[in-house]
Amino acid sequence: MRYAYLGPEGTFTEAAVASLGLAAEVRPVPYPSIGAALTAVRAGEAERAVVPMESSVEGIVTATVDDLSAGNGLRIHGETRLPIAFALLARSGTALADVKTVGGHPQAQAQCRQWLAAHLPNAEWVAQASNGEAARQVAEGRLDAALAGEFAAGKYGVCVLAADVHDNRNAVTRFVVVAPEAVASPAPTRADRTSVAAFLRGGDHPGALMEILTEFAVRGVNLSTIQSRPTGDRLGSYYFFIDCEGHIRDARVGEAMMGLRRVCGEVRFLGSYPRRDGGGTHVRPGTSDPEFAAAARWLADLRLQVRA
Amino acid sequence: MRYAYLGPEGTFTEAAVASLGLAAEVRPVPYPSIGAALTAVRAGEAERAVVPMESSVEGIVTATVDDLSAGNGLRIHGETRLPIAFALLARSGTALADVKTVGGHPQAQAQCRQWLAAHLPNAEWVAQASNGEAARQVAEGRLDAALAGEFAAGKYGVCVLAADVHDNRNAVTRFVVVAPEAVASPAPTRADRTSVAAFLRGGDHPGALMEILTEFAVRGVNLSTIQSRPTGDRLGSYYFFIDCEGHIRDARVGEAMMGLRRVCGEVRFLGSYPRRDGGGTHVRPGTSDPEFAAAARWLADLRLQVRA
Amino acid sequence: MRYAYLGPEGTFTEAAVASLGLAAEVRPVPYPSIGAALTAVRAGEAERAVVPMESSVEGIVTATVDDLSAGNGLRIHGETRLPIAFALLARSGTALADVKTVGGHPQAQAQCRQWLAAHLPNAEWVAQASNGEAARQVAEGRLDAALAGEFAAGKYGVCVLAADVHDNRNAVTRFVVVAPEAVASPAPTRADRTSVAAFLRGGDHPGALMEILTEFAVRGVNLSTIQSRPTGDRLGSYYFFIDCEGHIRDARVGEAMMGLRRVCGEVRFLGSYPRRDGGGTHVRPGTSDPEFAAAARWLADLRLQVRA
Amino acid sequence: MRYAYLGPEGTFTEAAVASLGLAAEVRPVPYPSIGAALTAVRAGEAERAVVPMESSVEGIVTATVDDLSAGNGLRIHGETRLPIAFALLARSGTALADVKTVGGHPQAQAQCRQWLAAHLPNAEWVAQASNGEAARQVAEGRLDAALAGEFAAGKYGVCVLAADVHDNRNAVTRFVVVAPEAVASPAPTRADRTSVAAFLRGGDHPGALMEILTEFAVRGVNLSTIQSRPTGDRLGSYYFFIDCEGHIRDARVGEAMMGLRRVCGEVRFLGSYPRRDGGGTHVRPGTSDPEFAAAARWLADLRLQVRA
Repeated sequence: MRYAYLGPEGTFTEAAVASLGLAAEVRPVPYPSIGAALTAVRAGEAERAVVPMESSVEGIVTATVDDLSAGNGLRIHGETRLPIAFALLARSGTALADVKTVGGHPQAQAQCRQWLAAHLPNAEWVAQASNGEAARQVAEGRLDAALAGEFAAGKYGVCVLAADVHDNRNAVTRFVVVAPEAVASPAPTRADRTSVAAFLRGGDHPGALMEILTEFAVRGVNLSTIQSRPTGDRLGSYYFFIDCEGHIRDARVGEAMMGLRRVCGEVRFLGSYPRRDGGGTHVRPGTSDPEFAAAARWLADLRLQVRA
Repeated sequence: MRYAYLGPEGTFTEAAVASLGLAAEVRPVPYPSIGAALTAVRAGEAERAVVPMESSVEGIVTATVDDLSAGNGLRIHGETRLPIAFALLARSGTALADVKTVGGHPQAQAQCRQWLAAHLPNAEWVAQASNGEAARQVAEGRLDAALAGEFAAGKYGVCVLAADVHDNRNAVTRFVVVAPEAVASPAPTRADRTSVAAFLRGGDHPGALMEILTEFAVRGVNLSTIQSRPTGDRLGSYYFFIDCEGHIRDARVGEAMMGLRRVCGEVRFLGSYPRRDGGGTHVRPGTSDPEFAAAARWLADLRLQVRA
Repeated sequence: MRYAYLGPEGTFTEAAVASLGLAAEVRPVPYPSIGAALTAVRAGEAERAVVPMESSVEGIVTATVDDLSAGNGLRIHGETRLPIAFALLARSGTALADVKTVGGHPQAQAQCRQWLAAHLPNAEWVAQASNGEAARQVAEGRLDAALAGEFAAGKYGVCVLAADVHDNRNAVTRFVVVAPEAVASPAPTRADRTSVAAFLRGGDHPGALMEILTEFAVRGVNLSTIQSRPTGDRLGSYYFFIDCEGHIRDARVGEAMMGLRRVCGEVRFLGSYPRRDGGGTHVRPGTSDPEFAAAARWLADLRLQVRA
Repeated sequence: MRYAYLGPEGTFTEAAVASLGLAAEVRPVPYPSIGAALTAVRAGEAERAVVPMESSVEGIVTATVDDLSAGNGLRIHGETRLPIAFALLARSGTALADVKTVGGHPQAQAQCRQWLAAHLPNAEWVAQASNGEAARQVAEGRLDAALAGEFAAGKYGVCVLAADVHDNRNAVTRFVVVAPEAVASPAPTRADRTSVAAFLRGGDHPGALMEILTEFAVRGVNLSTIQSRPTGDRLGSYYFFIDCEGHIRDARVGEAMMGLRRVCGEVRFLGSYPRRDGGGTHVRPGTSDPEFAAAARWLADLRLQVRA
């Protein structure tokens, strides 16, 4: 079983794959971009993809969210979370004073801004497609230093010049595991998450936002994330990426999804899967599966009576 | 077929029965009170009852609403509306100056307050169980005058001393036709009304009110009336009497009713029936029966997929 | 100082006046109706009026609410609550079997319905303007029995034939003390109530209801009562009678009132006064007077800056 | 007067500065990043900065929004909009088949993805800090081609190899003009926009979102944008960047801002300025300045009365 991931080796995404505790027969395969990893699953080159979804520093990862929301045959099957800790990697023998160029993914720069300003104020930043790529270029002598996870040092034969160079001690990134939509989704547990993309009919963004929030609220479904993303059509035209508590097979989630479907131009279901942040599903009184079933039986009986 | 109505002969309710345009075989039977007319249907003495439900001057008729909401086996099957015009009835030869006592139902007094103050400021008001009863007492010489509809004059052999003595030119009363719950309800038209009584779980009246309004609003079901009534248990304990647009067999009304059922302690369905005020059912985009059905199919397909 | 009350002597309203613990120089003066008692204050015949406002059995007292809401120069200055216990009063020597006619205020009949059905199923009910009046007619031999408070027996020289004949053990009535609007209102305490009548612009009753509830909710003002009443203009035209927590001088109540004023056709302030049900004012975080004042200073500073 | 802008020469931001129609004495000064341009104003090196704020393709420009929201002494004073049209620039004599490397800002790649896939499927993408920088590297022979506006060709002495290579015909970017907060803001017009950053107290993102939307909605203030951005503290901790219709000096905007201030941990006002998208401010009945003033006078009068 092949797991496509945002490579190359030495990226946080590879560490995320490792954290999944997969069986021996799983083979991680690096891809040069999020889009490439997802395309590999779509094309049948890989059975699963692991890509970053949301960072506590930079917010949702738009490449992932936009690709999945485009609705092309993939579903989220799981998630994992990884604390993000950066190190400054360099060739053996390099001193901090020798570093004239530093490379890494743009997010690495964003997450280490203060450290760079304090310790390498004059070094030139050279954006790279990934931190692993930056480490590779250090190994090849094309960059003096790279921002990457410590685990990348061994992979590329370079050294840790400085550890824990990230500004925020609590930085965490959430990764998702993606499968073709033909594969059955994980069954409900008591702590699931459902991801969905909702495309508005017209352009009334804030009014629609209130309407969408109400569809969830009235059925007691808590949202954990709602983010608007441009559809690209025109300034101010958006779709919403939504994470809510619960599973598509839960009655209250199902009714909320139907409500969403009726008020939106299009709704794309992106998956129901166990959450991995330690939280459970909050069920407000009146919104459990048995209460939905009891209300449905009551209505069915009434409707039978009135036709009697 | 017997129609129990709030009698005696000569009341507005009798005029309401007449306005129904019933077949020749229908026999109106007067009863001394709203409760007695409804009890007659429950007991099988009559097949239908016609009772007042709401007045443009005094609001909902609490005796009717409370009796139906008590949930004892009756359903509303229809409605009719009647303009309310009062006359002052007296024995032939009576002049206005001769009138020392005036009788009628307390609502008659309420609706003719200004005229009485202007023309009979010193007459004693004698409350009666009905306007018809007041007219009868005039005929028998026990009262000098009665407030009643002009049609009562002929029934009791008295004269119209003054016509149109009501303060409000536009006064209208809505009457309902009630049947045993075992009788099939009228089928949906495009202009129906559904009546329901919703009993709260706890005592949080205004919070519950917002919750109830939202259950209807999110499914695009317009309310035409919502009134709180004391349950009698304690000060501030209420139930809600609700009239909404549409029929229990409409998808959006059904889902709203299920939502109401889940957030309330108890919900009593009082009937779905054609409305007679000239209005139709407003259907907000996204809330028609086909749209509900399409959303349900979409969800069912999704759920099949995720189990595939 | 004269206190007009809904008389005659022997009514629950007289007992409510007594419960106020007024000074010796206060003189209670009975009036034949709620309207007459209120008119007495308006006309300067009395300094205060005490009238029933809400019953746990019958709901709001529409004569009081409609009169105050008509906006004719009165304000509520206080409230009191009285448990309602009925007795059957008769002349000395009367046995239950002798009772052919029973009188009282229509609410008395409503509150003793079960007892009457069980013990006097064949007695004729004779509606009276008040329970005190019914007791007086018993004393004069014109009625066999009256429903009234036990305290009425002594006033009219009749006996208690049966005590505690009311169906509901917890029946309570709330009375209000009313003064001319030129008299200063009670200062804020930490447990006040504010009463207001809100008249809609158009006829959209349920939509307006949601809008009104939101004006209070967004400022964290809890409602204890909201009741719609017909304006009398036409079927379905209503105004809202509202009791909310807090005092007109509280910042959050003031802003809610201004909001109400802007969305309604007319708003009539009926008074702010200490509540007497043992409850206090709930203040949601962000809605205290200091928080309103801090936000106002912040905005004023910002506006100064942008003009700088 | 110096205008710092996101340089170098030849970027869309420079074109945005030109579109402002500024006087001859204005001198545009390029800066290497959005942060550097904003810092220049803060440091007094420039009087104004022009930076991109929102793109119809990629959404809000997080570097701009996060920097302004950090609350460090800047205010938005104006906006401008520019259609975004990309060309492929190359040295004279270069044919499409010769292009092995293409450079540009990452957003350029995002906006020309389809064209690149169709016409240069095998070219290597080399991310640059700006499109102008990419054009410069083409001129210096370090890149074969650059994605940039046509206007950059003249600046760098290169040629337009292909025009209109962007995927979306309607791509527009909105730029803002930023000034130190000590400078007076533009006075209200009838078509203003107000930008604000709202930081939540706790972590309840979707609940807070509903609360924030309601604070605006109840005062009839339309939102044109609301976006959540991570605060960087932890996964799921967000602030909201909000654009609403109207000016801080409008009564309804002021009251909404005070409401926001009370429900949020912190609110940062980012500026009120004329909008440049052709739209005007929608004023719902009941929310105009005169209506706010009338309600305030009404309340003040009432409060005087109750103290009389």
